[in-house]
Formats: sequence, C-alpha cells, structure tokens
Amino acid sequence: MGLVLKYGGTSVADLANIRAVASYIREVHATQPVVVVVSAMGKTTDQLLQMAKSLSNALSKRELDTLLATGEQQSIALLTMALHQLGTDAISLTGSQAGFLTTKSHTKGIITDVRIERVQQHLQEGKVVVVAGFQGITPDGDITTLGRGGSDTSAVALAAKLGFRCEIYTDVDGIYTVDPRHYPKAKRLSHLTYTECMEMSALGAGVIEARSVELAKKYNVELYIARSLSTQGSGTTIMNDDYMFEAKPITGLSITDNVVMITLKGIDNDNRRVAGIFQVVSDHNINLDMISQTIDQHNRLVLSFSIDGDDLEEWHQLQSGHENLFRGLDIETHDNLVKLSLIGVGMASHFGVAARVFETLADADIPFYHISTSEISISVTVDNAHQNPAIHRLAEVFQL
Amino acid sequence: MGLVLKYGGTSVADLANIRAVASYIREVHATQPVVVVVSAMGKTTDQLLQMAKSLSNALSKRELDTLLATGEQQSIALLTMALHQLGTDAISLTGSQAGFLTTKSHTKGIITDVRIERVQQHLQEGKVVVVAGFQGITPDGDITTLGRGGSDTSAVALAAKLGFRCEIYTDVDGIYTVDPRHYPKAKRLSHLTYTECMEMSALGAGVIEARSVELAKKYNVELYIARSLSTQGSGTTIMNDDYMFEAKPITGLSITDNVVMITLKGIDNDNRRVAGIFQVVSDHNINLDMISQTIDQHNRLVLSFSIDGDDLEEWHQLQSGHENLFRGLDIETHDNLVKLSLIGVGMASHFGVAARVFETLADADIPFYHISTSEISISVTVDNAHQNPAIHRLAEVFQL
Repeated sequence: MGLVLKYGGTSVADLANIRAVASYIREVHATQPVVVVVSAMGKTTDQLLQMAKSLSNALSKRELDTLLATGEQQSIALLTMALHQLGTDAISLTGSQAGFLTTKSHTKGIITDVRIERVQQHLQEGKVVVVAGFQGITPDGDITTLGRGGSDTSAVALAAKLGFRCEIYTDVDGIYTVDPRHYPKAKRLSHLTYTECMEMSALGAGVIEARSVELAKKYNVELYIARSLSTQGSGTTIMNDDYMFEAKPITGLSITDNVVMITLKGIDNDNRRVAGIFQVVSDHNINLDMISQTIDQHNRLVLSFSIDGDDLEEWHQLQSGHENLFRGLDIETHDNLVKLSLIGVGMASHFGVAARVFETLADADIPFYHISTSEISISVTVDNAHQNPAIHRLAEVFQL
Repeated sequence: MGLVLKYGGTSVADLANIRAVASYIREVHATQPVVVVVSAMGKTTDQLLQMAKSLSNALSKRELDTLLATGEQQSIALLTMALHQLGTDAISLTGSQAGFLTTKSHTKGIITDVRIERVQQHLQEGKVVVVAGFQGITPDGDITTLGRGGSDTSAVALAAKLGFRCEIYTDVDGIYTVDPRHYPKAKRLSHLTYTECMEMSALGAGVIEARSVELAKKYNVELYIARSLSTQGSGTTIMNDDYMFEAKPITGLSITDNVVMITLKGIDNDNRRVAGIFQVVSDHNINLDMISQTIDQHNRLVLSFSIDGDDLEEWHQLQSGHENLFRGLDIETHDNLVKLSLIGVGMASHFGVAARVFETLADADIPFYHISTSEISISVTVDNAHQNPAIHRLAEVFQL
C-alpha cells in the first residue's frame, strides 16, 4: 500500500522546513509509493488575501481563487526542487494537472471527480508525486479553491482513489478531548472513530474539517493526524467505527466561536416558503447549522439557525436582495455566541448526558440558548463571556 | 480596431501602480475593446528564482516554470480586482485559459498556437480581458514560460490573432539610438521599421526582444513602445518597412554584453559533424550567434560562434556529455566580450560603413575580434574593458 502525506502551511513555512519535509519524504519513499499534498507556505495565503482586500471591497470569488491558488503552486514546485536536490525523483502537479474537477462554487469548490491517471503514471515511474492541495478546476477550465480545510480533502480524495493510507501533518500533535488553548488539561486521543471525529470537526475542533473525515469514512481511508516531523505513533489515528472503545460516554468537547443565531418569526405554515429561504441561503454558499423549527401559538412557524459570523455580511446582502421572501417576518439576530458540543459514540446508549450538561451549566449560573443534538453529540450556545467557565465545568464533569 | 496593452513588471510593481494602470485601462476601454497582458509584479520573479536556487543547484526547468508562472497569475487577478473596484467589467485568464499552446521547451517555450475563442467571447461580453503574459501550456497540460521578453511576445501574438494594435508599456520611454545608460547623449527614435528594430533587439538593445518584433512584422501588427502612464505619442512607433526614412545610414548602436566566443578547430571537412554539433546545441536550447566557418591550411574546418555567458555552464555540460562529437577538436573559449552592432536600413546602399567602423576602432587603439554582418547591420566584438571608449567613438562618428 502507498501513502498520501499532507503538509499544512506551517510545515512548509520556509525553505528550512521545506528541506526537512523533503528529507522525511525521501526516507518514506524508500519503501513505498508516496504522493505528497501541500498547502501554501506559511502566511502566503493571508498576504495575498490582504493585497486583494486592499484593491477591492467587493472581491470577485473567481479572481480570488486564481490569486490564492498560486500559493500552493509555489509550494509544490519548491518542495519538488528540494526533493530533486536529495536525488529523489519527483514531479509537481497543480490541482488541474492532478485531475481535480470541482463544481463552479468559487472559494468553496466541491470535488466532483479526481482523474488520477497522470498521478498513477508518475507513481509507476517511481516518482514522488507532489500535488497542490486546496485547488481544482471547473469543466470550463476556471481555477477553484476548495475552501476551509480543502488541502485535507484533496489528500483524502487522492488516498481514496489510490487506495493509500493518508497521513496529515500539521502544527498540532493530534486531536484532543478539548482544544488545549481553551482547556490546558485536555488529553490527546490516540484513537478516534470516523463518526466521532466528524462530529468534533463539524463542531469546531479545528484540526481537520468534517468533510475530509466524511470522505475518509465513505472510502474507508486510514487517517492519521500528527505534528509535522514528529515521531511515528505520537498522533491520532482515525479509524472505522467497528473498533469500539470502552464505554466512556463522552470522548471530547468541541468549541465553535463566532456563532450568530438568526431567528425568523411569523412564517405562515407554508413549507414552500421555508424551502425558498434555504434555497437562497444555499445559493449564497452560506452554511447553516443548528437548524430548528417550532410552531407558535398562532400556528405560525418560528425558524432558527446559526451561521458563521464571517457570513453575516453576506446574509444581510441576501436579505436585502430578496425582500419578497422575507416580507412580514420578524427577524432577530443574536451574535457573540459560542457553541459548545459534547461528542461520544457511547452517548446514544447513555441516557442522562443532556440532563447533566444542562444541570452543570445551570449550577454555574451560565445561561444557554439553543440546543441541538445528534446520535453522538449534544450542542448548546452560550455567550462569549461565559465560554471559559462553561468549558472548564463541562470538562471536569465529563473527565475530558 | 481594438487594443492590446502590455504592462511590464515595473508598471505593476505595487498596489498603487496597479490602481493607476487600472484607471488608465478604464479610460481606454470606454472607446474600444481592450486586452491587457501583464508581467509579474516588480521583483516577484527574481524572489521566486532566488528561493529556487537556494533549494537546488540543478534546477528542473519544468518545476521552475510551474513556480515562475505564479507571478503573472497573481498580477492578472489583482489587476482584475482593481478594475472591478472602478466598476469596469473584467476577467483574468492564465496563459492556459487564454489558449497559449507552446512547445515543451521549458523556460524557453515557443508559441505554437493561440486559441483565442475564450478571449473573443469575453470581449464580446464587453469585458476587459486580463491575460497572464510569459506563459503557456504544452499539449500535455504542463506549464511553460516563454523565456526572456516572453510577455511582449504574448501581447503581440494576441494582437496578431485579434487584429488589434499593440502598445507595450515599460520603464523606458521608447527606443534610443544607443542605450542611454552607456551613452547619455543618445536620442529617442520616434519611428523605426520592424527590420531595424529586430536587428537592434537581436543585437542587445534590450527594450523589446527580436522575436516579438518578428511576430509583429509577420502579422503586420502596429507596435508602440512607451513609458508606463506617459503621454500618448511620447514613445517609439514601430512600423512597416515601406515607410522609409531619410537616407541616414546608421539608425542605432546596440550593445550585447556577457558574450562568449567559442572556436572549434580541426574539424574534418565533414558537414555532417558540424550539423551534429548544431543539433546538440539546439537540443540544449543554447542560442548561437555570430556563427562563422573557415577552412584552415590543412583543409580542416574552423567553426566559431558566440553564446550568452549565462549558457556557458550548459555548454560545458553539453561538451562533456558528447565526448565523441568533440573528440580530437581544439576548443577555445574567449569570454568577457561585448558585441557592438551598428544598425540601419540605409546601410545596404552605403558602402564604406564597415570600413569606417574598423578605422574608428583602430584609430582609438581598440582591438576587435569577430565580425558579422547582415543586410542592415555590422557587429564586432571587443573586450569588456574597451566597451565605453568604443561606444563613444562610434556614436560620435555616426552621429547617434
């Protein structure tokens, strides 16, 4: 079996790091076929974004993708040169050259296919294939980027197509029960199921995006997350749900900050209107979360959902651009929220977790607003100001 | 008729310059269709090259092209964003998207075709089309760059295909009789024929590469060279040879430095061997110049030619890689030379120019080595040390 190695921006932040990564790849390549997926060097993406923002206050997403994709294109060429210098045969491929076809949703492209013939050909030639993560091409030949965590998705997609194991090297040494920046006593998880990892990612754990884990689960890709250039085995392995752990109900606590809850009141009991609203929001590439719907005493719908604070301006534009759709509704916006989520595959068989969450917060006089649950998670929103005490109390109660 | 505007690296060196260029383009676009060809921002290419060189001392040209092409890709996106900010409809196209197909000679790609359907479609939509100069794509989808002066060639090729006029904006205000850095008293030429310009470029005038002018001549593209954001008419117009000027024999003096002369002695009178040598040199993408061949007293060939000093290492590699081809030959290398060339369409009808050149140099005690002539030029090599006195004497004698 071969290996897909993925290196994030901090792992290739400067030429010394690039040389170190090349040296590691050379070793690994001695015993097996290797594909490497890289992000842009360190702060490159941020610098390009800053230039773009100073030129235009209504950025074209197509142009932004063309601009940002250069970051990864530079990384693949430089890493390939460093490999050549070590005597390792290697070739760089842009997203387009590596066969990444995506939808036309600029800055949030979705991979529709990976045509891996060229990657396979170079692997057969014994080359290390260095692929630009985070990017693809539309059927029209326009450059797209895959949005947040896109390089991980590129790596997992290649591993899925090739039947390779996927190792993701980053600036943290795996996945923790709670984000250590918020709760220093958190513990590193040596193993985690796909499902738990997806919930933790979707709920803000930040190490790897849920879409990447979902893809890994779908194609049964062995996933390993560790700190760049760390000793083998010191990271977190993400595996099939069949490997069940001991019956600890809660595996981790995820934190999503910059959450805005939007509540629409006074919708006539007409599902077509709700469907229309979701369609428009989807057209604007705004991700909804924590959706709930209730019926008030006048038999009218109350629809509420959360969005990322970064999408708030886009939401306001959407609202003013579709006046008919929102006419007559009472719209409330509640910002400066943080979402706390407790996750564990054991949760489904442990009644009472929700009750303990609410009790813990109530005992600490922390008001909580919205609640959503899944098979293996329970989430609440609290005010930013209460974030730290809430995390500490919950982590202690659930021994994280 | 439409316009192709080409901006060099100094014209888009920073965000303020990009905004100024965008503002000019917006004005021009009010009255006619506009395609813009841009180079990489200021020192971007040099910085990327420096990173590459510090990673590897035997750079892969394919990887170098992938790396360097990002410079122009950034420029087109940023300039397009600046145009959007001014309310001008615009779209960026990479070399590949603009249909530039090239040979596989990495770092020195030759355009084989420009498939301009997409450019035409966007022009019909009323958009300013911002194209990355200097780059193209092979039939296999590999990124190539066009080598020195490649962005000018991109611009002229588009103008030829579209039937547009081509204006090249750079950091000098046109073409001078002699490079003003070498001879401050030099005069700007308001007009010049394609043929004279080609000779001057081929012979080191530096403002525009001969291949671009050759292409313009072939497709009768009106060419105008001026300083970026200068007043219209203050540059140099390059036009058809039919517009003949007054019978001044010499229009300009071109200077090519870093010239190395190579002389091969003792070749059996066998043209297949000479052809073999030229084939190998061509395979290594080394450009030859000032080629001459004579026969010595033993009926053996003496072949000499000049190469660019930058290609000297490649030449040495070529030599050691083809020992059979060079076996038994006496090979002399003469470096630190500068080539001085006097150009004028009137030269052909003025006998005695060569004699005056040699006389002038001899009077000044300046030794000269190799001589080559064309219909409208005469070139000699002198030692670097004699460059300045030779230029001044020749410029005075020929009133440049």
